[in-house]
Amino acid sequence: LPVVTCGITHGISMFADVWIDPGDVVILPDMMWGNYNMIFGLRKAARIRSYPIFTSSGAFNVTAFEEAVKDEARKNKKITVLLNFPHNPTGYTATHQEGDQIVTILTGIAKSGNHVLAVTDDSYFGLFYEPETLKESLFARLCGQDPRLLAVKLDGCTKENFVWGLRVGFITYGLQAKNDLAATYDALEKKTAGCIRGNISNASHLGQSIVLKSMQNENFPGEKQDKFNILKKRANKVKAVLSDAKYQDAWDVYPFNSGYFMCIRLKSVNAEKLRLHLLETYGVGLISIGDDNLRVAFSCLEENDIQELFDIVLQGVQDLS
Amino acid sequence: LPVVTCGITHGISMFADVWIDPGDVVILPDMMWGNYNMIFGLRKAARIRSYPIFTSSGAFNVTAFEEAVKDEARKNKKITVLLNFPHNPTGYTATHQEGDQIVTILTGIAKSGNHVLAVTDDSYFGLFYEPETLKESLFARLCGQDPRLLAVKLDGCTKENFVWGLRVGFITYGLQAKNDLAATYDALEKKTAGCIRGNISNASHLGQSIVLKSMQNENFPGEKQDKFNILKKRANKVKAVLSDAKYQDAWDVYPFNSGYFMCIRLKSVNAEKLRLHLLETYGVGLISIGDDNLRVAFSCLEENDIQELFDIVLQGVQDLS
Repeated sequence: LPVVTCGITHGISMFADVWIDPGDVVILPDMMWGNYNMIFGLRKAARIRSYPIFTSSGAFNVTAFEEAVKDEARKNKKITVLLNFPHNPTGYTATHQEGDQIVTILTGIAKSGNHVLAVTDDSYFGLFYEPETLKESLFARLCGQDPRLLAVKLDGCTKENFVWGLRVGFITYGLQAKNDLAATYDALEKKTAGCIRGNISNASHLGQSIVLKSMQNENFPGEKQDKFNILKKRANKVKAVLSDAKYQDAWDVYPFNSGYFMCIRLKSVNAEKLRLHLLETYGVGLISIGDDNLRVAFSCLEENDIQELFDIVLQGVQDLS
Repeated sequence: LPVVTCGITHGISMFADVWIDPGDVVILPDMMWGNYNMIFGLRKAARIRSYPIFTSSGAFNVTAFEEAVKDEARKNKKITVLLNFPHNPTGYTATHQEGDQIVTILTGIAKSGNHVLAVTDDSYFGLFYEPETLKESLFARLCGQDPRLLAVKLDGCTKENFVWGLRVGFITYGLQAKNDLAATYDALEKKTAGCIRGNISNASHLGQSIVLKSMQNENFPGEKQDKFNILKKRANKVKAVLSDAKYQDAWDVYPFNSGYFMCIRLKSVNAEKLRLHLLETYGVGLISIGDDNLRVAFSCLEENDIQELFDIVLQGVQDLS
């Protein structure tokens, strides 16, 4: 059974408390949610190994992923791989083919003798806007592949259902064991729940009750679909707007097909400088990531404001050039 | 400003994450909430130093407290003292005089050169049933006593206000500093909030909103007083019932004057055996603590059921004798 956490962040940090020792390696893409670094790097003193998330042609960089995993598998008996689709910040979800390759790589590593912890952060699950992307969590495919491969799913019900601040998340384990599968799951559940007990006692009861009740309501599926349609329209509008050639000197667009966010790579100005300029001059709030990248939360943009937003960003780039 | 936590347990564990290193000493009474051991002992690998909470005459054992504090202060530059009034499990709150002595002892240790972290867990604050007990948190008296004494208050608004499961708690710091007091508080707030960010992102927004709204309601003070009166009546009824001499061969009553709980010390039977016997034979659920103690949550007992409960416990003792 899933163990309830105080949101998915808490799921990640409880996973880290139960499973990560100082010096362990955690394999993550070079673009990632900053809090991973806080949780794994700062709190747990783990070493984060990055790989470039995209190929130059805009696909998930399976080759770089495989190299990083194999390299770390040579150096460490135990490796931890965190997969986050839809991805924060890029809004990318792996295709069916890329998903198969990821599963094959991790299973192969486990079969060759490494202990593999494969963790999926499914915070934005369900918000898939394109036919070619995976529509299920990689967790399902990773379960039961090998006794040395433990699949861990971290998900929530609040972001998926378009409510925030209720802080309801889940940790779910999937594994293969020759004997005593039930006893093994029971032990994992008790260890994890014990860790939560020693951290927060338990998660908000009220949040859980509200989510459950809302999901039992007959209007729930329809309302959820309506919200999905709104986000999908916004994502498509972003793509349409950004196909305009006038932006191409200012930035490249990272691939995106899902989730809440998308990113652009600036060609001529510093991302943090531009962020501050946009905020101070135009009252536009974006997130800078590293020197070159800006994250746009299209999920919070009205469809009709999308054109204007990117025109302001372009103006900002020109102001600073 | 207080930092919001996901309940007081989370306040304790965030305090521990920010302030406690492996091997640090945490001074606690011999009777205590079991989760302290999980948080400080198991999670943080701190060493717990106990002192007997009561004298044989039923007062807070200031002498034993002082001995433990001074002994650890000799061995460690930094000591952490956790004070929990009203106390779980005994329901004891220090008297005004005992409170003064505690503050004097801790201030003296700080003035003599030790770094003292004095933490108050005020989970059951306000539920004081006797005139002689402290009616304010020791936190207030510990603030500003010495630059080497950091007072930390962990409290909540849900237990105090008779709601549970909302998971809303607070961490508040109180200190003395020669310069830059505001900057020091700002740094403490940021460090602590950062630790929470890396653990759960943030606490339930809904719980906070509900508590705030309920407190703004004009009926709130009256309703809170009504609930207090009910608990106080139950506490007094427990005292009246237990003054009957028929129980005196079976157990002693630990002092209590506040909170949700009280404890008895069994004279002739094992506490865990009795607990199981009461549960299986009479459907009565109590908590055993160590070999000799049973905790009774009189807060959840109707006044009219109190006599019957203790008669069942006595019957249970006689069954096993």
